[in-house]
Amino acid sequence: MKFTAQQIATFLQGEVVGDPNISVGEFAKIEEGREGCLSFLANPKYEEYIYTTQSSIVLVNKDFEPSKEVNATLIKVENAYASLAQLLQLAESVKPKKTGISSLAYISSSAKIGENAYIAPYVYIGENTIIGDNAFIEAHSFVGDNARIGDNAILGVGVKIMHSCVIGNHFTAQPGAIVGADGFGFAPSNGVYSKIPQVGNVVVEDYVEIGCNTTIDRATMGSTVIRKGTKLDNLIQVAHNVEIGENCVFAAQVGIAGSTKVGNNCMFGGQVGIAGHLHIGDNVKLGAQSGVMHNVPSGETWLGYPAQKSGTFMRGHASTMRLPELMKTVQTLQKELNVLKQRLEEKES
Amino acid sequence: MKFTAQQIATFLQGEVVGDPNISVGEFAKIEEGREGCLSFLANPKYEEYIYTTQSSIVLVNKDFEPSKEVNATLIKVENAYASLAQLLQLAESVKPKKTGISSLAYISSSAKIGENAYIAPYVYIGENTIIGDNAFIEAHSFVGDNARIGDNAILGVGVKIMHSCVIGNHFTAQPGAIVGADGFGFAPSNGVYSKIPQVGNVVVEDYVEIGCNTTIDRATMGSTVIRKGTKLDNLIQVAHNVEIGENCVFAAQVGIAGSTKVGNNCMFGGQVGIAGHLHIGDNVKLGAQSGVMHNVPSGETWLGYPAQKSGTFMRGHASTMRLPELMKTVQTLQKELNVLKQRLEEKES
Amino acid sequence: MKFTAQQIATFLQGEVVGDPNISVGEFAKIEEGREGCLSFLANPKYEEYIYTTQSSIVLVNKDFEPSKEVNATLIKVENAYASLAQLLQLAESVKPKKTGISSLAYISSSAKIGENAYIAPYVYIGENTIIGDNAFIEAHSFVGDNARIGDNAILGVGVKIMHSCVIGNHFTAQPGAIVGADGFGFAPSNGVYSKIPQVGNVVVEDYVEIGCNTTIDRATMGSTVIRKGTKLDNLIQVAHNVEIGENCVFAAQVGIAGSTKVGNNCMFGGQVGIAGHLHIGDNVKLGAQSGVMHNVPSGETWLGYPAQKSGTFMRGHASTMRLPELMKTVQTLQKELNVLKQRLEEKES
Repeated sequence: MKFTAQQIATFLQGEVVGDPNISVGEFAKIEEGREGCLSFLANPKYEEYIYTTQSSIVLVNKDFEPSKEVNATLIKVENAYASLAQLLQLAESVKPKKTGISSLAYISSSAKIGENAYIAPYVYIGENTIIGDNAFIEAHSFVGDNARIGDNAILGVGVKIMHSCVIGNHFTAQPGAIVGADGFGFAPSNGVYSKIPQVGNVVVEDYVEIGCNTTIDRATMGSTVIRKGTKLDNLIQVAHNVEIGENCVFAAQVGIAGSTKVGNNCMFGGQVGIAGHLHIGDNVKLGAQSGVMHNVPSGETWLGYPAQKSGTFMRGHASTMRLPELMKTVQTLQKELNVLKQRLEEKES
Repeated sequence: MKFTAQQIATFLQGEVVGDPNISVGEFAKIEEGREGCLSFLANPKYEEYIYTTQSSIVLVNKDFEPSKEVNATLIKVENAYASLAQLLQLAESVKPKKTGISSLAYISSSAKIGENAYIAPYVYIGENTIIGDNAFIEAHSFVGDNARIGDNAILGVGVKIMHSCVIGNHFTAQPGAIVGADGFGFAPSNGVYSKIPQVGNVVVEDYVEIGCNTTIDRATMGSTVIRKGTKLDNLIQVAHNVEIGENCVFAAQVGIAGSTKVGNNCMFGGQVGIAGHLHIGDNVKLGAQSGVMHNVPSGETWLGYPAQKSGTFMRGHASTMRLPELMKTVQTLQKELNVLKQRLEEKES
Repeated sequence: MKFTAQQIATFLQGEVVGDPNISVGEFAKIEEGREGCLSFLANPKYEEYIYTTQSSIVLVNKDFEPSKEVNATLIKVENAYASLAQLLQLAESVKPKKTGISSLAYISSSAKIGENAYIAPYVYIGENTIIGDNAFIEAHSFVGDNARIGDNAILGVGVKIMHSCVIGNHFTAQPGAIVGADGFGFAPSNGVYSKIPQVGNVVVEDYVEIGCNTTIDRATMGSTVIRKGTKLDNLIQVAHNVEIGENCVFAAQVGIAGSTKVGNNCMFGGQVGIAGHLHIGDNVKLGAQSGVMHNVPSGETWLGYPAQKSGTFMRGHASTMRLPELMKTVQTLQKELNVLKQRLEEKES
């Protein structure tokens, strides 16, 4: 299916700069563009490609002004990246989707499956479990007993939602993600560790997405909670009784230890680690690989190991870079001081 | 089922402070307590909640003395956390458990399944493999050929135990854990890498627990070994030919490179990395995110990157914090020295 | 099956030092050697064991000269580790392999399965998907629609290859690895995140191996690419639109953020993190746990957080180690300077 620049601009409430009748039927990266393709430019790092791209149409932010000639037709929009999301979502929504319940799935007789749900081969649905309308449950997924999965949820291949967990609407779990396995709780006693059964659950609110092989442990008691709109990348660890606020985005391989609370609208870089029993405020940003050992107030950006406010870290790091130079300065000072001493002694003698 | 404070105190060999006849039937976190619930207080960080909790009973350490009025009935025990474990284990043990072998499981004809084992749908059990009594093998689990799984073992959903591995009794693998996949062994030769088939196995002793999506590689030759009572959290990497001693606890996302030996009773924080071919002694503690490049003697606590003894690291870190100040001091010294020089020169001239 | 030292030496084009007729039928680590076993010595750290090993034959590099008496027969070869790989590969190649297509597998009617392929129980093969000759697809594996898997590929237990991905020949995926799940793409708009459907794929060239639970995300548009001969260990994250060159080796738990390009022949230690949109040259080495925030030119070795050229890092680290000492020196200087000042003042007064 092909669309003209004018049709797309109308859909996106944007403005055409170039040929309004040129049409596209595919998406391509700007540096790999071909005739008939639509590309986008959001990150200025890639600006150079707009002058050479073979794509027929490029979505750009409305404040973009080319510094050279551009062959492609531009569509100027408020936010090129958000507009791209809209177009791609439209393209996805018209693709045919699998439906129906496979005869190779295992569904407990007491489970309730919503309307229009897709249940793939080798899926396991436990007792008294409720699956929402339009749920899309891929092969090898597991939903334990007494769990609830919301409407329009997508469970990727091999996703595991353990018993008694409560998952909201519009949830997406990428393949291999695990929600609600036992938290890591052992009571030391006479040199050995005794398991603390984890009798809580995980509660995930609406519009949450979690990545491949990410693990969110059930609470010892009460609930581990992921609030509305939060997105977690791959291979992330969320320990028992953690609470993560709304609209957070965490990059891959982040680890959050037990009982830590994270506020709303936080952004964490990859491989960040946060100790247990801490409070991280709202709108907090943590640089990749930060190791957080203290509460972080709202609105702050921290980084480093141990993590500090970014200004403090940057100053400390800049100083460290200049340490070899400082050492030479101090040696010079020592020598000069000794010379002075000697000269003074000569004067005194 | 409900129990009175007196019944619980008798079971735990503890002492009731308050109403011995008050009864509870549920567990709750102290800050979320409700009437009819039992809570616990082990971490002093949460003491404030004991004065406001709605829980009917709170387990506390016997040396706990409230600084304000407490409404809840207290049960004083030697170790509140260990007592909680006992109570929760008791509650778990009376829950009904699934039993029997699903007709949707694939069990090789030469495999031997112990008494009272539960084998869920879509489980695969390989040839000549022996599964112990009371084993609990959840959906989508895989046990390869010629493997042995001990009595009372729990294999969570989608656990994979590869061929020829030997797993002890009372083993628990959380969902997605993988034991015995190939180690990462390649011989470089003329710029390309040639695979070294990994012909060893993994041996796991009794009372071990491993976390979700944790991976323990088989040995190149011989065995990768996890000794008795050790507990590994989620997303941990244990490379080929590693040996981990008894009663260790490793937090999530730890990685241990090939052939490293770890002693008994070690505690590693999250995201710790240890290089290959090292010896880590007994009773070693490693701070979260430490990067260990050297052998660590028994009894020591190390942290940092590269990891050092904690005292050395803390002194170094404190010095680094004071670097900007030190730099100013050195600048001041330089100026003062120059003033002195000039004054001395004036004297001399 | 047993082989004499002479037969093995002939196969490896090596030289026997000792009894050419002694024979072996098993492999063992040098420190666990027994009569009838073959061991190897490649890492000089283990040299001590060659003087005490009970193994009948030991493979050594041709420049190895024992400093004490050795009981074992030695076979001297160009590269002991590469020769070991050859022997182990020979031993593996004669083991019986499973073949055939399980009736418990789900194979779409439009899929094409190559000759001699093994398809285990509970495998799912999507529509229009092509599986190469001699492919070995273990239990619980998933290959999505419109994908292509090359000849001689091995998909371990529970491996997931998502739709439209293209996988080369001689590919090996260890259990739980995931290729082609959605990249982490969300457009922020008015404080919430809107999903950017990921319409690209993953292209994996020949002779690639990826580890357990490693995740390689599909591109937003275009392809995430892993080139020929590259080997990735367990629990690695490769984000969308990343390109990794030929013959790279990455240790476990490495994470590479979106759109970063890595050259050929790179070696990354465990837990390395690389920011997005960077260029890493050819022959780059990164120390374990490095945090890379800048482009790295070809041929360089970087380490640390933030990562720097190894020389710079080492000098900086050495200086940091000497900081407490430097602080004392500066204090001494201050005191001496004050003494001088006073003496000068006395002179002047």
